[in-house]
Amino acid sequence: MKTLVIVAHPEIKESSTQLFLKEIAIKHEGITWLELNNASINNVEKNRSLLKENQRIIFQFPLLWYSAPGILFEWLRLNIKQTDDTWLAEKELGIVVNIGQAAKNYRIGASEQNSLSSLLSPLGSLANKLKMKLMPYFLIEKFEYLDEQKKKRLMIDYLQYLDLDQPISFEERQLWVISRLKKLVEVSKNDKLQLILNNVVEQKEKLDELKNEIKLIREAENNQY
Amino acid sequence: MKTLVIVAHPEIKESSTQLFLKEIAIKHEGITWLELNNASINNVEKNRSLLKENQRIIFQFPLLWYSAPGILFEWLRLNIKQTDDTWLAEKELGIVVNIGQAAKNYRIGASEQNSLSSLLSPLGSLANKLKMKLMPYFLIEKFEYLDEQKKKRLMIDYLQYLDLDQPISFEERQLWVISRLKKLVEVSKNDKLQLILNNVVEQKEKLDELKNEIKLIREAENNQY
Repeated sequence: MKTLVIVAHPEIKESSTQLFLKEIAIKHEGITWLELNNASINNVEKNRSLLKENQRIIFQFPLLWYSAPGILFEWLRLNIKQTDDTWLAEKELGIVVNIGQAAKNYRIGASEQNSLSSLLSPLGSLANKLKMKLMPYFLIEKFEYLDEQKKKRLMIDYLQYLDLDQPISFEERQLWVISRLKKLVEVSKNDKLQLILNNVVEQKEKLDELKNEIKLIREAENNQY
Repeated sequence: MKTLVIVAHPEIKESSTQLFLKEIAIKHEGITWLELNNASINNVEKNRSLLKENQRIIFQFPLLWYSAPGILFEWLRLNIKQTDDTWLAEKELGIVVNIGQAAKNYRIGASEQNSLSSLLSPLGSLANKLKMKLMPYFLIEKFEYLDEQKKKRLMIDYLQYLDLDQPISFEERQLWVISRLKKLVEVSKNDKLQLILNNVVEQKEKLDELKNEIKLIREAENNQY
């Protein structure tokens, strides 16, 4: 998967969320990281060739005043034309959005009054107009309060969102984790990682055995009727 | 009514819609016209004192990629704080939005897929957070195709949106039109305007007479029972 991550944040260097995501994404093969600023948004030729080269386009931003930051809309205005549906069609559009509040506050009657789907609907209409395939948005909620365990989970989920075919089955997730771990073990020669890998592979084998048993039982049952 | 019109358009001078609205608004007492650009959005002191001085705040913009233009969100980020609800509360927030397409395309199942209320929902949540009173948005549809008659109508409706207490009764509209026309006649000494004014006043008197008759009939009916 070739993925372009377009990051819209007025002060990326001050954002612990964006720095965390950046560290994950830039180490990963096939992912291009593009930070929007007054210079980069005007480099139309480069921006359009990045869009052409990549199959999955990600808009990544914090929700600011209930919207994607202004610079993302400026980037859209300067770099995308209505007629670009001829070559953007069939590409995927993903949204990685982080909020400082609990997600449950985004609903009618709650403090923020509108759902995230409603607040992000301009990007939905954009995907529709450009005939792009819109992925379910990827939400990061109250990053500052995540413990180490949850951050590790976020790391894997985020990478899968950038890299894996959607929608993802449980089996695909397993295979993806195993292949990624194998690569990491090869590169790092880290014993702990090797143990984790062995453990994951073992788990998968056990699950496969169980699935096979269930299959045999079902077949036996079917033969009775 | 003291009204601040905040205009967000990347190329105001190229926009016949904005030039049309500007000509109406700047001639009108009590309306302050503020165009957003890279310089003006950073003048925080001035922007905040304009907000303080005015009772009705209008965001005016074309819908670009299904959203208010990026510069409006930049302006919000730079000039408004979450805690500003202490002094923005009870002020009114209006939205003047123009679209190049028919409004009927903005609904589920139609070409643009989302309603304007959904696309503009970030501004709804903003008003809610700041405890401002959100006015129904004022829509200008396909301005380029309006004939002279419709432009005149738009002019009056737009001025009323900026100036008149909301919601507006029919009678308030009439009185407002008469008082505005009287002022114009005083200033311009234009005979045509005088004729229009006479006509409007006459119409209002006839309507009042009819209303009075209806009232008398109703009273008579009530006395029968």
